[in-house]
Amino acid sequence: MTTKPFLRNIWYVAGWAADLAPGARVARTFLNRPVVLWRSEAGKVFALDDRCAHRAMALSSGPVVGEAIRCPYHGMEFGGDGRCTRIPAQDKIPDIARVRAYPLVERQGLLWIWMGDAERADPGLIPDYPVHDDPKLAWRSSYFHVDGNWQLLVDNLMDLSHLPYIHAHTIGGDPELHFRTKTQSEKLPNGVRVMRHMPDSDPPPTYVAAAGFTGKVDRWQEIEFEPVMIRIHTGACDPGTGAYDGRREHGFSMFGFHGITPETETTTHYFWSMATNILTDGIPDEVFEQTARTFAEDMEVLKLQQARMLAMPDLPMIDIASDAGGRHTRQFIARCLKREQEG
Amino acid sequence: MTTKPFLRNIWYVAGWAADLAPGARVARTFLNRPVVLWRSEAGKVFALDDRCAHRAMALSSGPVVGEAIRCPYHGMEFGGDGRCTRIPAQDKIPDIARVRAYPLVERQGLLWIWMGDAERADPGLIPDYPVHDDPKLAWRSSYFHVDGNWQLLVDNLMDLSHLPYIHAHTIGGDPELHFRTKTQSEKLPNGVRVMRHMPDSDPPPTYVAAAGFTGKVDRWQEIEFEPVMIRIHTGACDPGTGAYDGRREHGFSMFGFHGITPETETTTHYFWSMATNILTDGIPDEVFEQTARTFAEDMEVLKLQQARMLAMPDLPMIDIASDAGGRHTRQFIARCLKREQEG
Amino acid sequence: MTTKPFLRNIWYVAGWAADLAPGARVARTFLNRPVVLWRSEAGKVFALDDRCAHRAMALSSGPVVGEAIRCPYHGMEFGGDGRCTRIPAQDKIPDIARVRAYPLVERQGLLWIWMGDAERADPGLIPDYPVHDDPKLAWRSSYFHVDGNWQLLVDNLMDLSHLPYIHAHTIGGDPELHFRTKTQSEKLPNGVRVMRHMPDSDPPPTYVAAAGFTGKVDRWQEIEFEPVMIRIHTGACDPGTGAYDGRREHGFSMFGFHGITPETETTTHYFWSMATNILTDGIPDEVFEQTARTFAEDMEVLKLQQARMLAMPDLPMIDIASDAGGRHTRQFIARCLKREQEG
Repeated sequence: MTTKPFLRNIWYVAGWAADLAPGARVARTFLNRPVVLWRSEAGKVFALDDRCAHRAMALSSGPVVGEAIRCPYHGMEFGGDGRCTRIPAQDKIPDIARVRAYPLVERQGLLWIWMGDAERADPGLIPDYPVHDDPKLAWRSSYFHVDGNWQLLVDNLMDLSHLPYIHAHTIGGDPELHFRTKTQSEKLPNGVRVMRHMPDSDPPPTYVAAAGFTGKVDRWQEIEFEPVMIRIHTGACDPGTGAYDGRREHGFSMFGFHGITPETETTTHYFWSMATNILTDGIPDEVFEQTARTFAEDMEVLKLQQARMLAMPDLPMIDIASDAGGRHTRQFIARCLKREQEG
Repeated sequence: MTTKPFLRNIWYVAGWAADLAPGARVARTFLNRPVVLWRSEAGKVFALDDRCAHRAMALSSGPVVGEAIRCPYHGMEFGGDGRCTRIPAQDKIPDIARVRAYPLVERQGLLWIWMGDAERADPGLIPDYPVHDDPKLAWRSSYFHVDGNWQLLVDNLMDLSHLPYIHAHTIGGDPELHFRTKTQSEKLPNGVRVMRHMPDSDPPPTYVAAAGFTGKVDRWQEIEFEPVMIRIHTGACDPGTGAYDGRREHGFSMFGFHGITPETETTTHYFWSMATNILTDGIPDEVFEQTARTFAEDMEVLKLQQARMLAMPDLPMIDIASDAGGRHTRQFIARCLKREQEG
Repeated sequence: MTTKPFLRNIWYVAGWAADLAPGARVARTFLNRPVVLWRSEAGKVFALDDRCAHRAMALSSGPVVGEAIRCPYHGMEFGGDGRCTRIPAQDKIPDIARVRAYPLVERQGLLWIWMGDAERADPGLIPDYPVHDDPKLAWRSSYFHVDGNWQLLVDNLMDLSHLPYIHAHTIGGDPELHFRTKTQSEKLPNGVRVMRHMPDSDPPPTYVAAAGFTGKVDRWQEIEFEPVMIRIHTGACDPGTGAYDGRREHGFSMFGFHGITPETETTTHYFWSMATNILTDGIPDEVFEQTARTFAEDMEVLKLQQARMLAMPDLPMIDIASDAGGRHTRQFIARCLKREQEG
């Protein structure tokens, strides 16, 4: 597998909205481009090239001043649209005194950035994630920096068959149980869904502890890919109470959000959250930390895959039967890339 | 701004003479070339390619032996002219047993090296800096390794308008005061001079502390560029006593020397000294350390500029009004480069 | 000297057999190729590309399971011949599910790997080193990672003239004594031998301590190169007792093995052992550690040579008189390379 170009004309997760307080700014690279994310004192969020138009200084090292960000070197200020709003000791501001601005939208607890053609940046295309706005759910968020290409992380999350191996000591469980369950894959209007239903099965100990099940359950695992983020919904109901007919609110639900944003060809930003409908204590620390430990095991895998792909770039990757979901996702991504390249 | 080639046929500062005692040697790279600087036991200074002609071992790892430097691997010795003077167990020394020697001159406390065509290395072209030899002045020297292209350091030093921003917490002062003062720029036979005169103005607290001014002063800031070093003369006299007529010896003077030598395209050697005519205690530790802290702030800027230029190499740098001095200097450097390239 | 290609169709030392216990595996790069070395539970040793055929995961991170190694990501297993032997939840194993296997032979305490055309990997071509199997000798082994091209290490070991310089503080001794002794060089069927005989000379203090010599000795130093390893035999007998007629067993002998395997163009695996016929205490700790310290001095030289060669790649290396043995060895290697390139 050689490194493919980035998808450009889509919304990517740029960060967690709550991490950017009024007056704060942060330097972050997306698709090889250094960007400064900042929030004005009035509370609006902006994304600019992190390079002053004057002497290439990093704007992210300067302060937010009202509705502008100031270069710390010579005091030039830029508004959220990238236009220079002030040059010290100079009345006239030339039109070329500007930096590139990227569309940035705050929605459902997330910041979404558009790195492609700005005129095509329709906020209506932002992937929906109402979980973060739902008062009946409690959620917590995190961030990992990944030493691997973004596609490797998509592969990893669309794939349930690695659980008994990489996660043998955390959430893995019995390999045979995993492989006995049939995985279904289906197309979505803008993505791919992978599902596994386990009717009338034993609930895992964490489900019993969280939801108090006393017998068998109807259990589900559903994973949805949309470029480039993934929603994972897992949970269980008492048998025959509607788990597979869309009536799940009375059961136990865990919702995972996975925002996947390329930093470079070989590194990736990974913004994830977990939510549950067991509200008594929100997400308990031990559950959150076990999840983080589990994901950290995946990060080690991605790093090794990336290193081996760089050392042996000409070897193919073969597919096996359990790759159906991942394969459909890669095919979908390939079509998106082709569409972008053909304009 | 793309990286321009180095100026080759000029004298560069290679180091401080006092740092190289008889018998000492140091490895230092200039213009991408590893060089060993050494001083013979008789006290002469030399510069050679830091690579033995025999097996490419670093000569800088070997001892100085009399008037030669010995390769530590097999004992071959080379004189200051680069010719091999001894091969163990071998009587005849072939003519090809030599390493490249670079003209190196010790003058006014500095070592000056010529990395270009040796036959054009006229010591009369070495920039003059009598301050270091003047018994009426006290001086101290330092060295910084800069993570940025040499041109960025030139820009920084020729530019007074960044003081209120980057140095707000050290020597900055009021931005309005800085920008109210007119900056004049003029050509020199081999360089550029930038001047600011502040007649009948309030002296800064450090001037009062050092020189005991009790009222207003006639103040000056003068910066001279000559490829590739910079002299900065700042100071003040009582008003109307000749500050702008060349009679400054009765006032308070600070002299800054700034030797700027490319190591690689993205790193630079920065040799600087400060001198004063207040001799009672020489340069007090706190003044010297505040200056070093101030320059360290600039080093952080240069590092960030370099990183952003590498990440976004195709973007232009726009000039603003306060860049006149820096722009003249860059134009002068461009003419020097053009002259070198046309032979 | 520019970097030459690697010799491919020869046996290289891959490791010490004793370091690879049943069930153990180790990641090691040879000739730029990441390889996993592993020993099955039945005790056989194997070498495979360290990259799963499925998703490029490092096999060296997975466990050895019986006679196979298991990828830790999705549980695929591969036998010693590189063929996949198990895919979880899949009955049919496609023929393309395999990784490249490298011939690996365990002999005389060493693991030997063949990185070239597997069909030409004749175990009869493995360099012989009976010292490791001789019950009349005691030996100890070690490993260094070298920051330099493999050829630099060959040069270093074939060369006795650097001893009084680099090793002045360890095994060096008097330069004049070293250079007085004539070095002879001769061709071997598959290599080069360098010899120095010192009849009726004073034994070094370590020889006296080890073997109890009370007078003069007949001393020898013999170095044999065979691509790419080196045998060094040094020792002494009482004068006139057969040292130069092949009767040395009654004297004091030290045998050095030096396996030299390229990791990359600029780094090298160095597997070495020392053996002696003084069996009372085997190799005493202080002798072994002094040897390791001595070799570590050489490693510093190789690192500096490599750095200078990279910085100044176009400069030649000149030969001096004492380079005869090294020069013959380089000429022999050049012929081997030419033969490989011509097929």
